[in-house]
Amino acid sequence: MIRVGVIGYGYWGPNLVRNFSELRDAQVTAVADRRPERLAQVQRRYPGVRVMTEAADLIADPAVDAVVVATPVALHFELANAALHAGKHVLVEKPMASNSDEASRLIDEAERRRLVLMVDHTFIYTGAVQKIRELVGTGELGDLYYYDSVRINLGLFQHDVDVLWDLAVHDLSIMDFVLPQQPVAVSATGLAHVPGKPKNIAYMTMFFDGPMIAHVHASWLAPVKVRRTLLGGSRRMIVFDDLETSEKIKVYDSGISVDPSPENVYQMLVGYRTGDMWAPKLAVSEALAVEAAHFVDCVTNNARPQSDGEAGLRVVRLLEAASASMQNHGRPVDIQGVTAG
Amino acid sequence: MIRVGVIGYGYWGPNLVRNFSELRDAQVTAVADRRPERLAQVQRRYPGVRVMTEAADLIADPAVDAVVVATPVALHFELANAALHAGKHVLVEKPMASNSDEASRLIDEAERRRLVLMVDHTFIYTGAVQKIRELVGTGELGDLYYYDSVRINLGLFQHDVDVLWDLAVHDLSIMDFVLPQQPVAVSATGLAHVPGKPKNIAYMTMFFDGPMIAHVHASWLAPVKVRRTLLGGSRRMIVFDDLETSEKIKVYDSGISVDPSPENVYQMLVGYRTGDMWAPKLAVSEALAVEAAHFVDCVTNNARPQSDGEAGLRVVRLLEAASASMQNHGRPVDIQGVTAG
Amino acid sequence: MIRVGVIGYGYWGPNLVRNFSELRDAQVTAVADRRPERLAQVQRRYPGVRVMTEAADLIADPAVDAVVVATPVALHFELANAALHAGKHVLVEKPMASNSDEASRLIDEAERRRLVLMVDHTFIYTGAVQKIRELVGTGELGDLYYYDSVRINLGLFQHDVDVLWDLAVHDLSIMDFVLPQQPVAVSATGLAHVPGKPKNIAYMTMFFDGPMIAHVHASWLAPVKVRRTLLGGSRRMIVFDDLETSEKIKVYDSGISVDPSPENVYQMLVGYRTGDMWAPKLAVSEALAVEAAHFVDCVTNNARPQSDGEAGLRVVRLLEAASASMQNHGRPVDIQGVTAG
Amino acid sequence: MIRVGVIGYGYWGPNLVRNFSELRDAQVTAVADRRPERLAQVQRRYPGVRVMTEAADLIADPAVDAVVVATPVALHFELANAALHAGKHVLVEKPMASNSDEASRLIDEAERRRLVLMVDHTFIYTGAVQKIRELVGTGELGDLYYYDSVRINLGLFQHDVDVLWDLAVHDLSIMDFVLPQQPVAVSATGLAHVPGKPKNIAYMTMFFDGPMIAHVHASWLAPVKVRRTLLGGSRRMIVFDDLETSEKIKVYDSGISVDPSPENVYQMLVGYRTGDMWAPKLAVSEALAVEAAHFVDCVTNNARPQSDGEAGLRVVRLLEAASASMQNHGRPVDIQGVTAG
Repeated sequence: MIRVGVIGYGYWGPNLVRNFSELRDAQVTAVADRRPERLAQVQRRYPGVRVMTEAADLIADPAVDAVVVATPVALHFELANAALHAGKHVLVEKPMASNSDEASRLIDEAERRRLVLMVDHTFIYTGAVQKIRELVGTGELGDLYYYDSVRINLGLFQHDVDVLWDLAVHDLSIMDFVLPQQPVAVSATGLAHVPGKPKNIAYMTMFFDGPMIAHVHASWLAPVKVRRTLLGGSRRMIVFDDLETSEKIKVYDSGISVDPSPENVYQMLVGYRTGDMWAPKLAVSEALAVEAAHFVDCVTNNARPQSDGEAGLRVVRLLEAASASMQNHGRPVDIQGVTAG
Repeated sequence: MIRVGVIGYGYWGPNLVRNFSELRDAQVTAVADRRPERLAQVQRRYPGVRVMTEAADLIADPAVDAVVVATPVALHFELANAALHAGKHVLVEKPMASNSDEASRLIDEAERRRLVLMVDHTFIYTGAVQKIRELVGTGELGDLYYYDSVRINLGLFQHDVDVLWDLAVHDLSIMDFVLPQQPVAVSATGLAHVPGKPKNIAYMTMFFDGPMIAHVHASWLAPVKVRRTLLGGSRRMIVFDDLETSEKIKVYDSGISVDPSPENVYQMLVGYRTGDMWAPKLAVSEALAVEAAHFVDCVTNNARPQSDGEAGLRVVRLLEAASASMQNHGRPVDIQGVTAG
Repeated sequence: MIRVGVIGYGYWGPNLVRNFSELRDAQVTAVADRRPERLAQVQRRYPGVRVMTEAADLIADPAVDAVVVATPVALHFELANAALHAGKHVLVEKPMASNSDEASRLIDEAERRRLVLMVDHTFIYTGAVQKIRELVGTGELGDLYYYDSVRINLGLFQHDVDVLWDLAVHDLSIMDFVLPQQPVAVSATGLAHVPGKPKNIAYMTMFFDGPMIAHVHASWLAPVKVRRTLLGGSRRMIVFDDLETSEKIKVYDSGISVDPSPENVYQMLVGYRTGDMWAPKLAVSEALAVEAAHFVDCVTNNARPQSDGEAGLRVVRLLEAASASMQNHGRPVDIQGVTAG
Repeated sequence: MIRVGVIGYGYWGPNLVRNFSELRDAQVTAVADRRPERLAQVQRRYPGVRVMTEAADLIADPAVDAVVVATPVALHFELANAALHAGKHVLVEKPMASNSDEASRLIDEAERRRLVLMVDHTFIYTGAVQKIRELVGTGELGDLYYYDSVRINLGLFQHDVDVLWDLAVHDLSIMDFVLPQQPVAVSATGLAHVPGKPKNIAYMTMFFDGPMIAHVHASWLAPVKVRRTLLGGSRRMIVFDDLETSEKIKVYDSGISVDPSPENVYQMLVGYRTGDMWAPKLAVSEALAVEAAHFVDCVTNNARPQSDGEAGLRVVRLLEAASASMQNHGRPVDIQGVTAG
């Protein structure tokens, strides 16, 4: 039985507590939050859970085996680091840390102490993204041509991070999970409509070695909610619409075929294929339930999580590069640590 | 009665001939195309129209008052220039020319000879775009925050121009028509999946003086067709979906309100408004019919067209800048000739 | 503080318990269900609530002021009747009873004892249906022409009631709430695809005095989920799509205008109007929360609920008539107790 | 070369003339219409076609081998009959005639004279309906459970026929083509909102021998256009949405499985299957082009058309029964000439 402590009971914390509570092999023993009214709510719903205002008390609690950090990003490193030092396994919200240096230090600390360090890349535990990874992995799509995502809505303007760190982080974690390659450079643009606040609309292009490109459009200022990803391959293409209730993934048997040696140079070199469309049945489990079970399983068996610290670091490196590029109106920035394949 | 000659009877030419034929104050007297089988089709449908393989013959024809140039882009300048020199009024397909120098020279030539020079920016003659211009012009939207367009489908890979010059040109002409400001710089990224061919997927960010940003995503390699534009303002926001049959424009009474002097700096500075949505009834005339009548009217009354040479030049300048930026993976490029307002 | 006891903790019971628990002026003191594992779940979530397997014990409990009956339909009368006899106020699931005789007896019993009797017509407490009632009531739609609803999906085949009693009951309760008139006759058709089981697909037409017609299509055997209602008037028409997240109600400024005295009998007598569409902002409160508060308010102030016993009875009468008509392949059946206006 | 004469150049006539004109093995030699302005339009578009105001002249014309009757329904019998008597092959608009007696007499006349008699059931020549017939025929759907169609929009109020004869006729012709069984009885309801005019909203249920049911909802008075058909089988179900541009047919691997011998009678007898969805690629030819070629082929080879007179008669019999049932508010009416299988 893994005893879990959760720091932060704001927007996402309740979902974490609920999902860990429903696991057979785990129990939530403590919740910390600075706001007494949030703790009162915990007590009404979960009379058996101990509550505290100081995260340090939770981290020091011997009745806690694993710590979940669900605070604003700026506190991720400090709290996760303290928890690791106290010998606790850690599940930290995305993005993993405020910068890649912090992320690296957490990885090192976890490795040194042989503790599980996992990042809450929730989407990779959905049936939809698992299916996309499977389709990419088995070669169903052929060579990958592009990844394009739109993640916009009229949403909360965050105070501490910009819209890429808030929304595009989902896309970057999905890409990290399903694509066989890492981006080698980034060009990003964006704007803050409220002076002095983080950018609330942003566009981010990622370049790869080879004929592949990726792009994310993220915004807190759209009148409609869109969650749509296109993944194009030489054999098939996927449309992943997360707002669809029953057909989130559609696979199109469409594409182009290039004739490498046309007799007549004036001929069209590119041919089109359109064919059937297919929407595979997806697993319908709640992603966070799958993820919580996976974390508990990794802790129990000392295994490496699918969304480990390295995955978290790779995502943070992309966000860092995007921020740097945005400051320069799209000037491309190379990704550190990625070597051309 | 204005006598019209059309050069180029490929994809768009038949639409031009049909629409000019149905006008009361115009008649199509000649069509030129290098392909005899295209000319045969003209003759079957319009027995009274003279056909010829040489554009020069059409331009020299005294029974032609105005020349419509509907050829590949590379020929626009040469043919339009020759027609102007021959004293003919000119309607030229978009984009107006292969570069801004050619576009400027056509403008100068038309002015010198007091001839009408119009660019076929078809979209600005649709009921939808006219309504958007009206909503922007009357201040319904408040301050403009962003313009975002997605124009993708599985489409013909052009040989001579990239996907921005082929598809984004529509968005640039719409922006030129509805926005009160011109972009001052561009950052664009893109990729050619067929080696040696023009880029078939591209992303283009435009910067303005002030807190406004624009972005276009254009692609010939998408499994689904999308024609969707978002136009966000401080008071209202528009979704323009050109694939909708009856509700192309939706106006959302949504937005943010910024409190300039919060008592408590920790308070949320940005408030949200969501309200009614409204889909105005639109004029349903065929855009090209409206445009053809406008051209004939300008020729008859020696008036300046809504999509004049200057508009065509501004669009070409943006495309030039985008091409330059794409060569450098998004490095921003300033727009020549735009002075900060 | 109204003390509420809930009988039946199956599909809907948990929602009832949760919503009554969150009210300030009410508390859930007891839950009864025959299944011990359901009661165990109650205890885990609500340690302070007493649980029991016998409904009679709950009804006899002096610490219960009001009883909510959330059992299969066949038990509604017996349990609601017993609760009224014990002096408890009653909220009973829809449909109110198995037949109109039982429904009438509950109404009489509640009146005799001056107790509140309310039927859980949940939909009338939604922002969408409240808005429709408002639009009808203010005359926005003009004369009402038709009400048409499709309520289908791949759903649980009920054992005790057919698909009209399970799904169409929602539409009948909405119609009862928003329309100024009652149906005077019914013609219904349907089929049971599983021999010996209740009909799982059904169509129900309702006739009115005057030029108004209503129709409901209900099915447990559709591959897609549809929840769409059209309400047509002489001035405007409504589309109510309950699966839309943000624009559930669209009001179309469309209709027909009839020229009563055309000069030429060959002229078209009917003209068309199409105009703007408008999607009003709706209240977003959970319907069951509004309804629970309304019940508690009626109990506290001895007021008549919006969905009182009479409304429940009218709906049951329509269902009875539909069942009779279905047995005879659509033969029309008059509604008892409705006098032509 | 089959020489075709077309009677009636109103809404549909121009489509017929255009499609027959484009066939290699046919030419349109004559068009008749009472309205001179319609004939003038024919002459502008097709200078080689002879025009006349009298249908009798066209029928008597020796330069006409086959007559297409595209007039109001009331004239179908008279004109088709006259054409057959004159030895011409006939293609007649749907519905074939005003009643089943007229339809039968046309069949007899055509058989006696060994002439082709075809009814313009256009939909059966679409790629979508051809695909549905294939899926039904190969047993992909399993046992058929229901056919449900909604065909509504804000449409022209016809003067001579009601909305079932105008719109539902499409569904009846599709059902006739794809279903292995004929309906044995009909129950229909409807209403005329304009006094003294044909019914403009109608609902029609069809019963079959065995556990199959069909229903059509037709209306000229809906604010939105809907063209959606559900076809449910024991193994798979189809959604056919004719307004979809690229995925008109979706096949759902969903359904129910019935356990015939449950150990426990209280157990759920019906199990659910949900699975993949699949949208097959469809032929994209214009239906009327396919149909015109088929008619010419039948005339040339003296073959029996897919939509022959018997198909036309079966559809008219259903419409007759529906009209009779509507007069009696849904009272079921048996179909003449159908014997229970």
